[in-house]
Amino acid sequence: VAGPSSAVHRLVVVGADAAGMSAAHQALRTARAAGADLHVVALERTAHTSYSACGIPYWVAGDVEDGDRLVARTAQQHRDAGVDLRLGVEAVALDLAARTVTGVDVATGARTTWEYDDVLLATGAAPVVPPWALDEDGRPVPGVRAVKDLDDGAAWVAMLDAAPRRGVVVGGGYIGLEMAEAFARKGLATTLVTRREVMGTLDPDMGARVREAVERAGVTVRVGEDVGSLEVGPDGRVACVSAVPTGGGPAGSGSGPAAGERFEGDVVALGLGARPRSELALAAGLAVGDLGGVLTDDRQRALGRDGAVLPGAWAAGDCCEHVERHGGLRVYVPLGTHANKMGRVAGENIGRSAAGAGTGGAAGAEDRAPARFGGVLGTAVTRFAANGVHVEIGRTGPTTQQALGSGRDVASLVTESTTASGYMPEAAPIAVKVLAEKGSRRLLGVQVVGGPGSAKRVDTAAAAIWLHASVDDVAGMDLSYAPPFSPVYDPVQIACRRLAERM
Amino acid sequence: VAGPSSAVHRLVVVGADAAGMSAAHQALRTARAAGADLHVVALERTAHTSYSACGIPYWVAGDVEDGDRLVARTAQQHRDAGVDLRLGVEAVALDLAARTVTGVDVATGARTTWEYDDVLLATGAAPVVPPWALDEDGRPVPGVRAVKDLDDGAAWVAMLDAAPRRGVVVGGGYIGLEMAEAFARKGLATTLVTRREVMGTLDPDMGARVREAVERAGVTVRVGEDVGSLEVGPDGRVACVSAVPTGGGPAGSGSGPAAGERFEGDVVALGLGARPRSELALAAGLAVGDLGGVLTDDRQRALGRDGAVLPGAWAAGDCCEHVERHGGLRVYVPLGTHANKMGRVAGENIGRSAAGAGTGGAAGAEDRAPARFGGVLGTAVTRFAANGVHVEIGRTGPTTQQALGSGRDVASLVTESTTASGYMPEAAPIAVKVLAEKGSRRLLGVQVVGGPGSAKRVDTAAAAIWLHASVDDVAGMDLSYAPPFSPVYDPVQIACRRLAERM
Repeated sequence: VAGPSSAVHRLVVVGADAAGMSAAHQALRTARAAGADLHVVALERTAHTSYSACGIPYWVAGDVEDGDRLVARTAQQHRDAGVDLRLGVEAVALDLAARTVTGVDVATGARTTWEYDDVLLATGAAPVVPPWALDEDGRPVPGVRAVKDLDDGAAWVAMLDAAPRRGVVVGGGYIGLEMAEAFARKGLATTLVTRREVMGTLDPDMGARVREAVERAGVTVRVGEDVGSLEVGPDGRVACVSAVPTGGGPAGSGSGPAAGERFEGDVVALGLGARPRSELALAAGLAVGDLGGVLTDDRQRALGRDGAVLPGAWAAGDCCEHVERHGGLRVYVPLGTHANKMGRVAGENIGRSAAGAGTGGAAGAEDRAPARFGGVLGTAVTRFAANGVHVEIGRTGPTTQQALGSGRDVASLVTESTTASGYMPEAAPIAVKVLAEKGSRRLLGVQVVGGPGSAKRVDTAAAAIWLHASVDDVAGMDLSYAPPFSPVYDPVQIACRRLAERM
Repeated sequence: VAGPSSAVHRLVVVGADAAGMSAAHQALRTARAAGADLHVVALERTAHTSYSACGIPYWVAGDVEDGDRLVARTAQQHRDAGVDLRLGVEAVALDLAARTVTGVDVATGARTTWEYDDVLLATGAAPVVPPWALDEDGRPVPGVRAVKDLDDGAAWVAMLDAAPRRGVVVGGGYIGLEMAEAFARKGLATTLVTRREVMGTLDPDMGARVREAVERAGVTVRVGEDVGSLEVGPDGRVACVSAVPTGGGPAGSGSGPAAGERFEGDVVALGLGARPRSELALAAGLAVGDLGGVLTDDRQRALGRDGAVLPGAWAAGDCCEHVERHGGLRVYVPLGTHANKMGRVAGENIGRSAAGAGTGGAAGAEDRAPARFGGVLGTAVTRFAANGVHVEIGRTGPTTQQALGSGRDVASLVTESTTASGYMPEAAPIAVKVLAEKGSRRLLGVQVVGGPGSAKRVDTAAAAIWLHASVDDVAGMDLSYAPPFSPVYDPVQIACRRLAERM
């Protein structure tokens, strides 16, 4: 058993990326401010800490010179700040009763067990890699790869350095769109294959606007295609084969010969989403939800299978399910924004727990209301910018389908406006879709698709939704205007006003 | 006496720009929806309606080809929508007891009197033109001009077509900064002379950041100079002369020979603000506030000198004073955003009044809660972009001085961040100042100075302040992130979080 004496409050963090390291540093700050002695061990199975996964497509596209630039804080910086960081150590067992975590050194196989007073699971997410993307031995087919971590990024940079001519992107979400941008900017003839309309986190009518922009940039987009198998030619070229014959015939076997259309490429990027890495939590007896994520309360305390809080066990980030702020539904939104905030909440509460245990509560850190994670709206932005096309996408709140699914009576409207006053050279088209609840007139969601300057406008809506605003509230707000930035009424405000008038 | 028979509800609108025409159209829509018969006469002393005054500096700079492009709705479009528009008619008398407005045809001198059931004053603002900018006969000195209406714009385009070499801008606010941009982009050696720090609607430390950017673009900025006189050389060149000797000596006479520094230019733009045109209201016996604007309630009903609502009299737009949303203080913020909203509020209420009078209230338009103007936060944005420099400015809520002046205990903090993830080519510096009230922890104001993509972020803060959010609320919000658009935490959110931690 390793670690400091039990006189010190001991925190073991499993996973040293956004959630884990936010928690570690916040716990140290909070404990130190209260005069408590906290020792933090952080176990990380890879060689990397605190990197921007979202930046990888831009590294691949050539915007970022080096993967090191995506590292927000190096291992040394974490250590300098007092975190006992163990790289290349994979946590393989969590004993909640004994309060121990056992890790294996990936290089040497050496096992170490750490005792803890608090443990934080921040094991993150794994990319979805379907069986057809693996060979018979379960290894990735050369040229076919997801886009998740820095190793993926380095592999993609090398693959594109080999000057492939054709690229296929499977999946039309954020990563898919961003990799399509990277491929197009690198000059590849690019095909985007997606099961549903492009950007499935938008309503289909808004997703169609994104698709049209991507097509204008010369990308071939195939919607409604479910890749079910892969053919590797003798030249190493791969073809993704749709499982469903085009034309709506019966489904193919998914593993046999081509049942549907073939999408050929020298390289294939997988943008099929991510799943929570919750195996350790599940094996330890923690509650894992229907979406596969660890369940916590809003203080980030992990729940047991009986739904009760388990003392000393915490979880944060992409390994967790999230709670939708207003509907209260459990959702899975693996984003760095949430991981950082959940980590800080966990760290704050752990730091206070350390202060309470170490000082008998004298410092008062225990007296304050606990930190709480406020839930998610699903706010997100991205863009597709290549070959003279620049389209930005923003969204917050439920889609129409999600809102209807949670039993709400929804009114919605799409407004077309411009990002600047119409007479300005900066003016680009922007479409704003607003969703509100009939009766309460509450703003539920906003989706934006438009030219440069469009995406970030969704934050105004996110702030309004976060604070329970009605469409009438937004229509009356004092938002900013000047000709280079907006029409007199901001497009989000125009949309809310028009919907308010029609409800 | 002109106009329709008294069976029809009669509205006379004085001033056919943003507030007046928003009101006219909204009143017509509301009345028509209720089946009421409303006749709207709009009197406009100039030849122009519904134009973007904010666009004029960009017309001068060359971004806009023609002044006609700044016209949002032409006279014909207003008439087609049912407004009886009289151009070139100046309202010279308002008789509240007789319910008549008398106008004079500017070209012919013909007088007409209109009876009304409701009158809306939307007489707008006049640019501040100091005595030194006028000749002995009270006419503008050639080469010296404000930037207020389309005639000013056309004059400025002509003046710059004559290829002047040097330009002086007097005033460091929005118009001053935008004219400095126009001058610099047109290649003029430009001097900006301002009494206070550049952008006096910001705290001085934030204004200094703007000044530094403007100076980097090669503009000479002289702060603390109060122009008090003008010298016109034999070649027509003018010099603005500071009233105060530089170096802090005793004040000059302001009209005599040069007491201070001379700022020479072939052209001089006046950006000294605007004052409400409230003479007609004042003469009629309506209440005019300390700031010179017409006083109204939040339904835009004009007040009499006793503070009571005067039936049938309304006012909206730049001729009015505004109420600060939270502090309740009267302020003067002549902006198109407010003019449009106030006009709509007035129009909605007038339309209902017409419906109530015309139909005996049967249509129910009178039953709903009246429309109300929610007040102003002072949200505003602009930019300075010339000679390779691009700085954006956003602000909302009171400055530190204003907040302290209204008796609040203020905590504030400036955070430096980037507009995109630091590793992205789009990343530009952004400084965010956050003001909050101690105790309540309420967000009071946000000021932003930064590179491209900075300004509009102030809307997130404006939405939060509008809805009474605390800095903690903003710190927890689900705002958007992707590498081309933001660090993981949006800069406004970082600033709120840091301030929350320190309060």
